[in-house]
Amino acid sequence: MPTQPSRKIERVPNPHPERDYEVDLAVPEFTCLCPLTGQPDFATIRIRYVPDQWLVELKSLKLYMWSYRDEGAFHEDVTNRILEDLVEARAPRRIEVVGDWNVRGGIKTVVTARYEQKPA
Amino acid sequence: MPTQPSRKIERVPNPHPERDYEVDLAVPEFTCLCPLTGQPDFATIRIRYVPDQWLVELKSLKLYMWSYRDEGAFHEDVTNRILEDLVEARAPRRIEVVGDWNVRGGIKTVVTARYEQKPA
Amino acid sequence: MPTQPSRKIERVPNPHPERDYEVDLAVPEFTCLCPLTGQPDFATIRIRYVPDQWLVELKSLKLYMWSYRDEGAFHEDVTNRILEDLVEARAPRRIEVVGDWNVRGGIKTVVTARYEQKPA
Amino acid sequence: MPTQPSRKIERVPNPHPERDYEVDLAVPEFTCLCPLTGQPDFATIRIRYVPDQWLVELKSLKLYMWSYRDEGAFHEDVTNRILEDLVEARAPRRIEVVGDWNVRGGIKTVVTARYEQKPA
Amino acid sequence: MPTQPSRKIERVPNPHPERDYEVDLAVPEFTCLCPLTGQPDFATIRIRYVPDQWLVELKSLKLYMWSYRDEGAFHEDVTNRILEDLVEARAPRRIEVVGDWNVRGGIKTVVTARYEQKPA
Amino acid sequence: MPTQPSRKIERVPNPHPERDYEVDLAVPEFTCLCPLTGQPDFATIRIRYVPDQWLVELKSLKLYMWSYRDEGAFHEDVTNRILEDLVEARAPRRIEVVGDWNVRGGIKTVVTARYEQKPA
Amino acid sequence: MPTQPSRKIERVPNPHPERDYEVDLAVPEFTCLCPLTGQPDFATIRIRYVPDQWLVELKSLKLYMWSYRDEGAFHEDVTNRILEDLVEARAPRRIEVVGDWNVRGGIKTVVTARYEQKPA
Amino acid sequence: MPTQPSRKIERVPNPHPERDYEVDLAVPEFTCLCPLTGQPDFATIRIRYVPDQWLVELKSLKLYMWSYRDEGAFHEDVTNRILEDLVEARAPRRIEVVGDWNVRGGIKTVVTARYEQKPA
Amino acid sequence: MPTQPSRKIERVPNPHPERDYEVDLAVPEFTCLCPLTGQPDFATIRIRYVPDQWLVELKSLKLYMWSYRDEGAFHEDVTNRILEDLVEARAPRRIEVVGDWNVRGGIKTVVTARYEQKPA
Amino acid sequence: MPTQPSRKIERVPNPHPERDYEVDLAVPEFTCLCPLTGQPDFATIRIRYVPDQWLVELKSLKLYMWSYRDEGAFHEDVTNRILEDLVEARAPRRIEVVGDWNVRGGIKTVVTARYEQKPA
Repeated sequence: MPTQPSRKIERVPNPHPERDYEVDLAVPEFTCLCPLTGQPDFATIRIRYVPDQWLVELKSLKLYMWSYRDEGAFHEDVTNRILEDLVEARAPRRIEVVGDWNVRGGIKTVVTARYEQKPA
Repeated sequence: MPTQPSRKIERVPNPHPERDYEVDLAVPEFTCLCPLTGQPDFATIRIRYVPDQWLVELKSLKLYMWSYRDEGAFHEDVTNRILEDLVEARAPRRIEVVGDWNVRGGIKTVVTARYEQKPA
Repeated sequence: MPTQPSRKIERVPNPHPERDYEVDLAVPEFTCLCPLTGQPDFATIRIRYVPDQWLVELKSLKLYMWSYRDEGAFHEDVTNRILEDLVEARAPRRIEVVGDWNVRGGIKTVVTARYEQKPA
Repeated sequence: MPTQPSRKIERVPNPHPERDYEVDLAVPEFTCLCPLTGQPDFATIRIRYVPDQWLVELKSLKLYMWSYRDEGAFHEDVTNRILEDLVEARAPRRIEVVGDWNVRGGIKTVVTARYEQKPA
Repeated sequence: MPTQPSRKIERVPNPHPERDYEVDLAVPEFTCLCPLTGQPDFATIRIRYVPDQWLVELKSLKLYMWSYRDEGAFHEDVTNRILEDLVEARAPRRIEVVGDWNVRGGIKTVVTARYEQKPA
Repeated sequence: MPTQPSRKIERVPNPHPERDYEVDLAVPEFTCLCPLTGQPDFATIRIRYVPDQWLVELKSLKLYMWSYRDEGAFHEDVTNRILEDLVEARAPRRIEVVGDWNVRGGIKTVVTARYEQKPA
Repeated sequence: MPTQPSRKIERVPNPHPERDYEVDLAVPEFTCLCPLTGQPDFATIRIRYVPDQWLVELKSLKLYMWSYRDEGAFHEDVTNRILEDLVEARAPRRIEVVGDWNVRGGIKTVVTARYEQKPA
Repeated sequence: MPTQPSRKIERVPNPHPERDYEVDLAVPEFTCLCPLTGQPDFATIRIRYVPDQWLVELKSLKLYMWSYRDEGAFHEDVTNRILEDLVEARAPRRIEVVGDWNVRGGIKTVVTARYEQKPA
Repeated sequence: MPTQPSRKIERVPNPHPERDYEVDLAVPEFTCLCPLTGQPDFATIRIRYVPDQWLVELKSLKLYMWSYRDEGAFHEDVTNRILEDLVEARAPRRIEVVGDWNVRGGIKTVVTARYEQKPA
Repeated sequence: MPTQPSRKIERVPNPHPERDYEVDLAVPEFTCLCPLTGQPDFATIRIRYVPDQWLVELKSLKLYMWSYRDEGAFHEDVTNRILEDLVEARAPRRIEVVGDWNVRGGIKTVVTARYEQKPA
């Protein structure tokens, strides 16, 4: 039975919450559809975060990325939405999401969004 | 109205059939599905050919590549099928198709198939 | 009917004005004319900005860049003018424009201009 | 008085016609217009030739390349036409012209045409 | 239940035996033990072959590579043995195996072995 | 008699404790097992530290890295554990450990953990 | 009539003195003579400056660089002298000059000097 | 008469002591002996300093580096000793010495030491 | 007393005339003057030859290259003349000379000339 | 007891003499002395050979390379001598030795010598 795309990102307990450390993930195989033309767009998504109590589970992250395959999504919007989904599910101390999109119309676009927990 | 994926490759008359010359096309945005797991696969497809009476029309080539997006396809098979579709439609004098696939299971695969017209 | 060059940059609403994030655009196909010799000059224009209420619309940005094709323009001046046109039309929170010009007379020139909104 | 674009390539006597040797020229600043959309296209043109009695004069080659700036030209056609203009004007013993075009519609195109003098 | 290392390479029918084409596989994660010191050695194994009636099945190739993990093996010998195992199991028309070993004692070693079917 | 893997890192007196200076070590040959699948994982481990009274002895560091070869270890956890073992044994003034892991499931992971002595 | 080398750098009015922006110039074709041996030395000179009221005129900069061709000059001294000549003539707000010299006696030398206007 | 290795670094008056500027020297040909095994070690030594009243004379620096050729020296120690010899002889305002050593036992080592004059 | 530029290339006996072997020399510091404008031109000269009875002496080759510093020379001509001077003085079995010239007028030129002894 | 430099290259039986295969060795840490000036020279030595009955033993190859450390040797001569020593000791079917020497006097030298067994 093949695995299915899913918008839900699973979580794994952080084995070292006593320390700030960075996890840097690169997903070079992101594709969605252009909302204007319906044609495929391609990007590399990079995620750099400092976990709090939870880590991002990698297999579910792959299924999450897959879930955009048939969805129309603007470059700037989808990069921010990935940030928000990761913040909501994992509550990282700090996180940066970069969407590095292939050339369209002779122009290359890279979008970078960041989030940081407010001090208590 | 958005353009649609299509398995039909359009043709354009070769403006210089009096001479053997090479056209080298790189399509870095090919994606299909793994027939075993249903998960997405990604590749760069490179096409190098010597046209006879017809050129490959680029916009239809893009739609042709798009048409594999929801299709299960093995690396070796799809590279050969792209070769055959291009030979059938455009009858090039010589052609080479390279499928350069992303790493799966720690292994990177590149498939290279060639065709050459038989002398009359 | 072919699209026309135009000095007007269209705007798209920023879907995430609640957050500072960066958009990095690279336009490797800029050409204008040297005001002294009338000969073509070539550059890559890079734009990095934090949007406020509006995004730069990419298709109109391409037509904007095209609009310099038959215009005489000094390296330093045109880089600053692109900055000013983007500031005026989109009112970004921060923006940097880089003009990376091809070698002329054995000398390579890169011009970098920046703008930042004054705090209210 | 500014220099003007011109389709005429000047010639310079080959100071060493007694020997086959290669001259390799790279012109990274070629631009013309797409005949279908009217929008600018960009390429690097590379020329490798073995001169017979004449060399290509470099300043006139630059003006020749400039002369395509406002002309509609298909990738495959213009590469062959540059080859033919160079063959006609300079009668080289052997020549190869490569048109290396920027990405359009997610596809990169390189066209390579060759000519060789027939043995007397 | 975890998958196990295995010296047996599975086979898949070649969907295009009517044509000579190349499959190029890179396995950057090969490790075995030095027979003299017992210490780990590391290599990238590259396989380039023209299939006859069978393809190499990739998952079993990965398990095959894994099976050397606890085995003492000299650089030159193991590269030749991988070649022989692939020839025996898959009977390719042509095959080249490259073992690209990490530096030991300030010396880098690359071993390249080839096999070709004898004409019938 | 072959050297054995060992979890104990030997120490060498720092010949220049009077000065803060950095030692940067790269170990490109780290392998352990995935705790979920039992399959091998591969990484490059990089260590950058400012020694206090002791240096890391390189031969024992190599045996230490070797000691993970047959152990199941999550990417994030093992990077932090290497940090802790180095802090415990050598008491460096500052240290950073980077685990740079090979692609798994199309995703590349880099984990970076740091430690700094508290001022007395 | 050929242009002549000259130690005088011409100036062009800065079209945007209302803003701090950077101009980065790279001159990869600098040559002078070693004062000790009389043999030629070669360097790339890089200049990065924020103009005040004047820009450096590029053609005169090229003639200025040419003027060192037959002059004996130590690496450290000539880099500083170029800085001083540019400061004196153009009064930039900030400037950095880098002399990146070719290997001599197995040693590569790079000299970097900076100047900044004192606040009024 | 061949030049001899020497531990003495000659000095040259700094022609521009009125300004802080950097001199960056790369010596890619350093070799000494391992104190434990007696076998040769190899490194690139990089020196970046801000001169005070004196410059490092390059020819004597080469002879200085040569003087380690037959001497046993640990990586961390010799990098610090080169720093100290340069500080003692030239009294630079600031200096950084980097020893970038070749791989030994599968581990690459880079040592970085710095010195800065105390304010008067 | 400084060494002087000289058009004479010294020779050294080939210690292994019994065997065909290649010597590949790269001289990245060639400069001459443009015969039309009098301005400096820069090139890298590469020489690959199979010696017969004599080797090229390197110090005299450097002085030979220096001798073009104040001479007007066309790209194609000077590359051929260097070939001829090397053939005349050293009578190599085979030789190739490449002149790789810096960009002028947006065009890069590489000239390659070859010579081979006629079989006796 | 430290290992000693030695001109004797040990041999290991070729485990696969039934097949022609290549072994490619890179030794980036070769140093000898210039016979004219007595100063150190540095090179990377590359060896590519097809073994007959014997392999080159790597540890003794390292000691062999070490044995040139205090010996005066011309670039062309020493490359040929290494070839001859390897031919004499190991009788390879084919062998190529490349000496890739560091820049001296602004000139880089690469020497390539080859040997092939005569057919029986």
